[in-house]
Amino acid sequence: MRYSKLFLPTLKEVPSEAEIISHKLMLRAGMIRRLASGLYSYLPLGLKALRKVETIVREEMFRAGAQEVLLPMVQPRELWEESGRWQKYGKELLRFKDRHEHDFCLGPTHEEVITDLVRREVRSYRDLPLNLFQIQTKFRDEIRPRFGLMRGREFVMKDAYSFDVDEEALDRQYWNMFEAYCRIFERCGLDFKAVKADTGAIGGHESHEFMVIADTGEDEIASCTVCKWAANIELAEVKSGSDSGDEGEAFDEIKKVNTPGVKQVEDVSEFLKVPLHKIVKSLVLETDKKDVVVAMVRGDHELNEVKMKKVLGCDELTLAKEATVERVTGAPIGFAGPVGLREKVILIADNSIKSLRNFVVGANEKDAHLLNVNWDRDIKDVSFSDIRNITEADPCPECGSTIEIRRGIEVGHVFKLGTKYSEAMGATFLDKDGKERPIVMGCYGIGVSRTVQAAIEQNHDELGIVFPEPIAPFDLIVTVVNVKDEELRASGENIYKAALSKGIDCLFDDRDMRPGVKFKDAELIGIPVRITVGKRLKEDGSVEVFHRKTRQVELIPMEKLEDVLNSLKYSS
Amino acid sequence: MRYSKLFLPTLKEVPSEAEIISHKLMLRAGMIRRLASGLYSYLPLGLKALRKVETIVREEMFRAGAQEVLLPMVQPRELWEESGRWQKYGKELLRFKDRHEHDFCLGPTHEEVITDLVRREVRSYRDLPLNLFQIQTKFRDEIRPRFGLMRGREFVMKDAYSFDVDEEALDRQYWNMFEAYCRIFERCGLDFKAVKADTGAIGGHESHEFMVIADTGEDEIASCTVCKWAANIELAEVKSGSDSGDEGEAFDEIKKVNTPGVKQVEDVSEFLKVPLHKIVKSLVLETDKKDVVVAMVRGDHELNEVKMKKVLGCDELTLAKEATVERVTGAPIGFAGPVGLREKVILIADNSIKSLRNFVVGANEKDAHLLNVNWDRDIKDVSFSDIRNITEADPCPECGSTIEIRRGIEVGHVFKLGTKYSEAMGATFLDKDGKERPIVMGCYGIGVSRTVQAAIEQNHDELGIVFPEPIAPFDLIVTVVNVKDEELRASGENIYKAALSKGIDCLFDDRDMRPGVKFKDAELIGIPVRITVGKRLKEDGSVEVFHRKTRQVELIPMEKLEDVLNSLKYSS
Repeated sequence: MRYSKLFLPTLKEVPSEAEIISHKLMLRAGMIRRLASGLYSYLPLGLKALRKVETIVREEMFRAGAQEVLLPMVQPRELWEESGRWQKYGKELLRFKDRHEHDFCLGPTHEEVITDLVRREVRSYRDLPLNLFQIQTKFRDEIRPRFGLMRGREFVMKDAYSFDVDEEALDRQYWNMFEAYCRIFERCGLDFKAVKADTGAIGGHESHEFMVIADTGEDEIASCTVCKWAANIELAEVKSGSDSGDEGEAFDEIKKVNTPGVKQVEDVSEFLKVPLHKIVKSLVLETDKKDVVVAMVRGDHELNEVKMKKVLGCDELTLAKEATVERVTGAPIGFAGPVGLREKVILIADNSIKSLRNFVVGANEKDAHLLNVNWDRDIKDVSFSDIRNITEADPCPECGSTIEIRRGIEVGHVFKLGTKYSEAMGATFLDKDGKERPIVMGCYGIGVSRTVQAAIEQNHDELGIVFPEPIAPFDLIVTVVNVKDEELRASGENIYKAALSKGIDCLFDDRDMRPGVKFKDAELIGIPVRITVGKRLKEDGSVEVFHRKTRQVELIPMEKLEDVLNSLKYSS
Repeated sequence: MRYSKLFLPTLKEVPSEAEIISHKLMLRAGMIRRLASGLYSYLPLGLKALRKVETIVREEMFRAGAQEVLLPMVQPRELWEESGRWQKYGKELLRFKDRHEHDFCLGPTHEEVITDLVRREVRSYRDLPLNLFQIQTKFRDEIRPRFGLMRGREFVMKDAYSFDVDEEALDRQYWNMFEAYCRIFERCGLDFKAVKADTGAIGGHESHEFMVIADTGEDEIASCTVCKWAANIELAEVKSGSDSGDEGEAFDEIKKVNTPGVKQVEDVSEFLKVPLHKIVKSLVLETDKKDVVVAMVRGDHELNEVKMKKVLGCDELTLAKEATVERVTGAPIGFAGPVGLREKVILIADNSIKSLRNFVVGANEKDAHLLNVNWDRDIKDVSFSDIRNITEADPCPECGSTIEIRRGIEVGHVFKLGTKYSEAMGATFLDKDGKERPIVMGCYGIGVSRTVQAAIEQNHDELGIVFPEPIAPFDLIVTVVNVKDEELRASGENIYKAALSKGIDCLFDDRDMRPGVKFKDAELIGIPVRITVGKRLKEDGSVEVFHRKTRQVELIPMEKLEDVLNSLKYSS
């Protein structure tokens, strides 16, 4: 491709709409442009990177024995009624009526459609196993789209669905997909981690997420520094003993103290001169079943919403509204505690505070806390569970070693769905004994467009993008310093053509512009290797080979350039 | 691919939902399945054919200098307001609200989005020309989706948009695209014709359609048997002289005759013993501007709606409702005529009836017609225009030779848009003199999914699909007659692997089924060549090479099979 013809509008300034670096760089590098909130157009450079990821995904899905299909993006309400998700799925499911006033939605995922397809075609165990995938545009009406492709409304996803006779066969499919995913993200050149994950609203009973490691990631992931254990902190089990060191303490007398204007737990600790871990935070919550819950965790811990939902068996859990807090505690928000509540509520405390003695809680009264609170004597009917986030102070739940917590961007997700959808929708098969049984399903997603952006979030420097070689839109850029110099231009042209003939995806910067502008653009768009044809050619017959990642420059005599080109063929 | 693993559910019975042969065959061959009205899932075989067409389209678009982008399918109302199409586009434009109650639509086409993208990036004549395309799923909420992919609601389309400094540059782009389209449909192996076409609602001032010739096509196309002229009959100009042979006749006395129950023009001709061409059909029509129009054509001609709209300068034209007909004519539908109407209406007659004398018209009275009607004496204020379809009796408007009329399926369309969208949306550039001018645009569409089905509509026989080689989902099927015979199975396996190693897209029928079933499936799905490994292998060491199109069988000794395989590599 000749740069002079390429639709590649780079930007010097950082667009105000972008918050994170990958989003800024994709805009500046002319990869994407915003159409409306959460809706992006892919320009040629962005689409080329997207296609490289797609190609790797497709090849590995085929290698794993999956077959490609393409399902409609517009889906009828009836199928979603069958699965129960027409009601249950939130507003991310964009629902609308067609011209005949029939209800449809834009597919955010395709469990219903694929289950419907398979139930019509699969009759017998002989038709199984089956693994069908598609690479397709999905739509989720996010309440607050942001970060470009990271949390867009329209996005490109690879979704696969497996169909098996039993759990054992599903298990084989699941790990087969797991391995395919590892190959995919390795081939994309990404630093990633597969972690145990929550199965969330989609249902199912085993799940792993594939996380691209990046400081700005929305997810926190815990992993063992010794064994292979790794999990999203949403899910990571805490196996710390409940030993607080307090067990020997006698119960002191409960005492109310004034804490004027002191709400934050750190401030309470400071004000009362009590260590953080002896202050118990009480959060007033409401479930979709209208239950009011007071959840208690230590001052140095964080409540884990996913764990709480599981303990409560509810689908939705939110912080209670101000009016509810005032009704239940008799005080404004910020002073809730488990002692002296005005209504019967569900009390749940984290395991780690079970052995605490003489701890501090909110007094259910403005500007007041209670000291020396103790279980049984002061608080009854509490159940203890693992309801907090794991911390680096906790041991690995598998081997007890030290863990570390990092941030990541979720780019893939594998689920064991079991028979959730097949039972709801009557997708059955006849087993070897002629008995009708529900098909056992799995589902496997990759955010293709998100992977492109996550790669940039992980791989950039102050000059711009540093594309991992396998997903770079071009393998090589050939820059002619001065295109008006016929000799330089002709040499550049020759290198460009030689590269193309070797199957190297090459961009030829033939623009009549200052070299500085051309170098800056090349660095911004992150092409792994640049060959610069400049005055050295006339001096000693050599060209510069610049490596974007290391920023090292080699001087290569023209006659040895073929070896360099031969080493560049990533794209095939 | 091994057939035993392939998700390829063929059907013996013809599904009741299908009307035309290609739709039936695509369902029977397990290429597609219906999800809801106008919404289809592509199964692996269907998707493979679709991808082959996509690949040809993409290669030729690149060769023509176009660049690939990917635009959102969900589009904001604001852009469509700018172009004026939010109001003007009919119910095919599916409009809906997102969770924040903002108006959006599902993209049926992308003029607005691409014009918006380009107006933000293009500043100067130096940024032009530009030609951007995408291959993407579109949605049009057809009132009556039918014929499978032929008139679906969701479909895969290649749409391209060009941007130029002036009409001359647009003209070069236009013919460049025209030639690319010819190469695309040639490479797909299709019998097609490029014809002049109406520009319709999309606007613009020059247009050609690419038609796949097929008896069941929805369009009629006229073409000269001598010169290169070809046009959609919607548009084909009639240049017949108005000479009817009646010019010498004297005006006879007008006479009302009883024609009880005789409505159809053929019946009137028969009943009154008057030749068809001396009966004038009068159609009562209504425009979107609420005008009532009586259009007159000869009994052996057909009214052309597109021409009528142009004559009237209206966007919509429909047959008048019963109440309107009764109000205007004083009679029920079927007896309208230009003489004695009860209201002033617009009278338009086709050029061919200008010289008629003593013709027959409806009497505006139940069961009655008028004989010996004549212009001026009986009918005043008529304007004459070309408002009928061309017939094979008319001469070529270019060279006067004989024309022929065939049916076709529209698979491609090229338009000169001019400045319609760029002016409406302010997409301008600075020319060499620093003057701001609107960008001159073209647009170019190919119905990718429709092309697959049109290919089948054109290429099939009583046994099933006969795929043109370049777009067949597989190049070759290797059928082992009896897979339980180890020698046959091993030989089949060897041929399969040899074919794959040569880059031949090969399907290996390794199913443990009766040979008859396997042959029938192979014929149904239309793979161009079948190699059958059967008992001949044991007798004389040969295999059968069966050509699907000609149904010829060659016996080839195993040692010469390599030559056959070498000749089969269509797919690269």
